[in-house]
Amino acid sequence: MENKIHGVYLVTDRPLCRTHGLAEVVELSALGGVSLVQLREKETDSREFLELAKHLKKILTPFAIPLLINDRLDICLAAGADGVHLGQSDLPWQEARRILGNNAIIGLSLETKEDYHSLIETNPKPPLDYLAVSPVFDTNTKTNTKPAWGLEGLKWLRSKTTIPIVAIGGINESNAETVVKAGADSIAVVSAICSAEDPKLATEILSKKFHT
Amino acid sequence: MENKIHGVYLVTDRPLCRTHGLAEVVELSALGGVSLVQLREKETDSREFLELAKHLKKILTPFAIPLLINDRLDICLAAGADGVHLGQSDLPWQEARRILGNNAIIGLSLETKEDYHSLIETNPKPPLDYLAVSPVFDTNTKTNTKPAWGLEGLKWLRSKTTIPIVAIGGINESNAETVVKAGADSIAVVSAICSAEDPKLATEILSKKFHT
Repeated sequence: MENKIHGVYLVTDRPLCRTHGLAEVVELSALGGVSLVQLREKETDSREFLELAKHLKKILTPFAIPLLINDRLDICLAAGADGVHLGQSDLPWQEARRILGNNAIIGLSLETKEDYHSLIETNPKPPLDYLAVSPVFDTNTKTNTKPAWGLEGLKWLRSKTTIPIVAIGGINESNAETVVKAGADSIAVVSAICSAEDPKLATEILSKKFHT
Repeated sequence: MENKIHGVYLVTDRPLCRTHGLAEVVELSALGGVSLVQLREKETDSREFLELAKHLKKILTPFAIPLLINDRLDICLAAGADGVHLGQSDLPWQEARRILGNNAIIGLSLETKEDYHSLIETNPKPPLDYLAVSPVFDTNTKTNTKPAWGLEGLKWLRSKTTIPIVAIGGINESNAETVVKAGADSIAVVSAICSAEDPKLATEILSKKFHT
């Protein structure tokens, strides 16, 4: 699964998909070369969340792009999605691995260096598909986050682990390249694609940062 | 599992557990003879939800009282709870049965007669452990519900199905007996136990309605 964690990673935000709507943004990003999509819904009831997940899975399957679900293992199981993204307040990753099995993609957000230390104390070689540096820069999309890691923090984590790293938070066209150079295998974006006038073009431009 | 669905069914509401706190209310209701407990949390993050579920499971196991989780199959799986209660906006019961297996207790809320008709159209003998008539009376605890079924509605459903029926909504000491006589196998209460000065006594009094 490690080869899946590279390039541009889209985290969805329906309110930000003003111009195109969620499904169209996801399809355009797929056409633009996105490598992973995470469906993130915080206020939606389970039935609607499942319907959205099934719809996105259908869109992404022909592209062989994995769909991850934020937090909700049950939605992942019911929708036949490829895995989950877990934050520090979500279910423990050990439970997710036990419930979803070895083939699921499971990523964990680290908000601080302490989060990394606790993780490694529990399990020196955690069976996680990626660690997310969250947020790498300050962002308006998520407001309840701890201080940003910055490029130095990202480099620090890169020096500590061989687990693929996803950087998220405040990444856009102008800073994406420095994030990749600092060691991120993947850059996760929300508004840079969801709010883009042309989500396909936005994805293409971000994807090129991995080939320079 | 059918024998599990009888007597007093506690649906938790943490804000209503003012005097005693959630864990104490659950333990006192167990001492008072509660037959089923449903953990209902709507605003809690997954990690805290899981911790609550594990704690209640620990309290209820010595009493052999099943713990159900509202909506969240993943919390049920991770906590080793006994099943789930599903509303009309939660995951479809078919998915829950597939994911949780045949031994899980799965109950489904019906808000209208149409909900019953749709259920039976899909599957004339749905493998559900109970149907909840919700709400049987108007209630302040849940405000987004459709018009109450009333005793006539409850009798109507009783005449249609042999699946155990749980009545919920506005049930208290004074009307519990009429609900049982109208055909409910179980009466679900929230405030009648959570807000009681003496949750054990409140449960005992409600339990006696099944023996008169």
